[in-house]
Amino acid sequence: MSEWRKDPVVDRWVIISTERGKRPFDYKEVEEKRKIQVCPLCEGNEKLTPPEIAAYRTVGTAKDSPGWRVRVVPNKFPAVKTEGEAALRQRGVYACMSGTGVHEVIVESTVHEPGLDTQPVAQVEEVIRMWRDRLLKLRKDKRFKYIHIFKNTGQAAGASLEHVHSQLIAMPMVPAEIRLEIEGMKNYREEKGSCVMCDMIRQETAEKVRVVADGEMFLCFTPFASRFPFETWILPKEHLHDFGAIRAEQLRELASVLRDTLKMITAAVKNMPYNLILHTSPVNQDEERIYHWHIEIIPRLTVMAGFELGTGCYINPTPPEMAAQSLREARESLLPDDMGVRGGEPACLTGR
Amino acid sequence: MSEWRKDPVVDRWVIISTERGKRPFDYKEVEEKRKIQVCPLCEGNEKLTPPEIAAYRTVGTAKDSPGWRVRVVPNKFPAVKTEGEAALRQRGVYACMSGTGVHEVIVESTVHEPGLDTQPVAQVEEVIRMWRDRLLKLRKDKRFKYIHIFKNTGQAAGASLEHVHSQLIAMPMVPAEIRLEIEGMKNYREEKGSCVMCDMIRQETAEKVRVVADGEMFLCFTPFASRFPFETWILPKEHLHDFGAIRAEQLRELASVLRDTLKMITAAVKNMPYNLILHTSPVNQDEERIYHWHIEIIPRLTVMAGFELGTGCYINPTPPEMAAQSLREARESLLPDDMGVRGGEPACLTGR
Repeated sequence: MSEWRKDPVVDRWVIISTERGKRPFDYKEVEEKRKIQVCPLCEGNEKLTPPEIAAYRTVGTAKDSPGWRVRVVPNKFPAVKTEGEAALRQRGVYACMSGTGVHEVIVESTVHEPGLDTQPVAQVEEVIRMWRDRLLKLRKDKRFKYIHIFKNTGQAAGASLEHVHSQLIAMPMVPAEIRLEIEGMKNYREEKGSCVMCDMIRQETAEKVRVVADGEMFLCFTPFASRFPFETWILPKEHLHDFGAIRAEQLRELASVLRDTLKMITAAVKNMPYNLILHTSPVNQDEERIYHWHIEIIPRLTVMAGFELGTGCYINPTPPEMAAQSLREARESLLPDDMGVRGGEPACLTGR
Repeated sequence: MSEWRKDPVVDRWVIISTERGKRPFDYKEVEEKRKIQVCPLCEGNEKLTPPEIAAYRTVGTAKDSPGWRVRVVPNKFPAVKTEGEAALRQRGVYACMSGTGVHEVIVESTVHEPGLDTQPVAQVEEVIRMWRDRLLKLRKDKRFKYIHIFKNTGQAAGASLEHVHSQLIAMPMVPAEIRLEIEGMKNYREEKGSCVMCDMIRQETAEKVRVVADGEMFLCFTPFASRFPFETWILPKEHLHDFGAIRAEQLRELASVLRDTLKMITAAVKNMPYNLILHTSPVNQDEERIYHWHIEIIPRLTVMAGFELGTGCYINPTPPEMAAQSLREARESLLPDDMGVRGGEPACLTGR
């Protein structure tokens, strides 16, 4: 059984695999393990994963067989376990709780491709809809306080399977990153009376230098204090705290903006490794309407080292203004057919 | 000129290289650049570095020539620049300041070796003394609020030069990690009336399972909520906030404990990549006597991915209890001669 442990000094939770821990020897074998012969996420190999939790499939096709377009399965090596109460136990100065949580894999295509950028916009739309559906489903479990949805693409970004997929971890606490964001948003609102993210959208739209794509409902830009080269955020222009409440037309535009952004990023640097992180309000507690949900795309060209780990500060060798320009230039280099075209109409990105 | 930029939501500072930014093309060349022909840190190549700032040398030898044992030079590609006022400028929602700071490289041996673990204890002692000397010197500059000293060993830990060295970055603000630690220590003290680190030392000494080495003045253990496999901390047993005030006998024992710990870590997993981070109290402000200085050694066998970056939480596949046992076993496998022997006496680690 795994265990959540809390650092006694700072608000930092760690999932410790107490059950099947890795000894020094296991780390020496890492390279070997990467050479997987058969991909368990490919269409036709459904029996190689644990039983399916959810899927969008052609009517009449059976669970755990071909016919799906997006498929959700439990992580075969979950960091957390579904059973157990999320009750804090104190052991002297230390606090811990059982490793309660849910760890799911969202398979984003039937085909063995590494990136979401090569998928049609309609497919990306189904992926985002599945994120929403799983969020709505899992927050009915009152033990969970945050549903974390993310993607690791490329080895440097921590992907252990090449086949295009995202992950979901339901957690029994609000993690520090989200708590600190909420705190920052509250402080800003108290001081200025407005949402800092809404104000950022206004300033970015006016200044233009960091804008990558300006849609009707979403703004895509490289943040002023980008931690990583080519870091790119996508924000709904409307103040919305809850990704779970995304509307159909927003979902459609988001799919197009996200797909095209990933295309630009991978065009700028070939095989760019990146993490994609959905930031949304916590669940099952006082609603945090103050929050402004968004997506952060974090390319992993630099290594987080002793400076970053020790201070929480970052060194970014690519100014976001230069990154945005490079991404806009990358868009120019792509063929119109490459970009999000839906029903003959250019996607929001290409048209503006 | 580089620039410090602050995230408008959370307390996160980023150094942006606004002057000589890296375009997409530069990242494609990373592999090429690693193949350095001549090591600028080796004895005899002193002219390849910027002029020496400080050194421990044989009497009569000249600056920027052989004869040194530990040598400090400016980083050739500094993340920050010494000139400039540390004054905050507001640009709409965003805050920034000029990239004020100091970025130094401490060359830890004349010989081209990658790790501090292969150095004699006396050499490690001189390295630690140099860290102290630089800290004491740089805090005289009132612009600086924190002196961050760290080591990156191995590519996965962000080392760009193989030759054994550490780095120092003097910063015009107290970084979030240190600020959050101080906050946590304050909260604990208010609640319990004692120092959380002192209480941890008491509990670890009693429980023993996570202890790697128990010296007279220092305790070395794997923290209860270890973020990384084989993460190891070294704490002075006495409550001391300021590393700069380290006494001669403490410096001597710390050298021995640190050298032997690094030996165990690299014996457990060959070529273990790791960061070493010195955590000490801020400088030039209300003294933070509440702080308890310590060293964190962070092996980098796992990749920080979308879970870690999005939540600030970690998944650690090696329980610290198992890590401590592996490190103690690794010590057994080392020859007595390998370990810290000083004047015929076994070092604190081996003797206890």
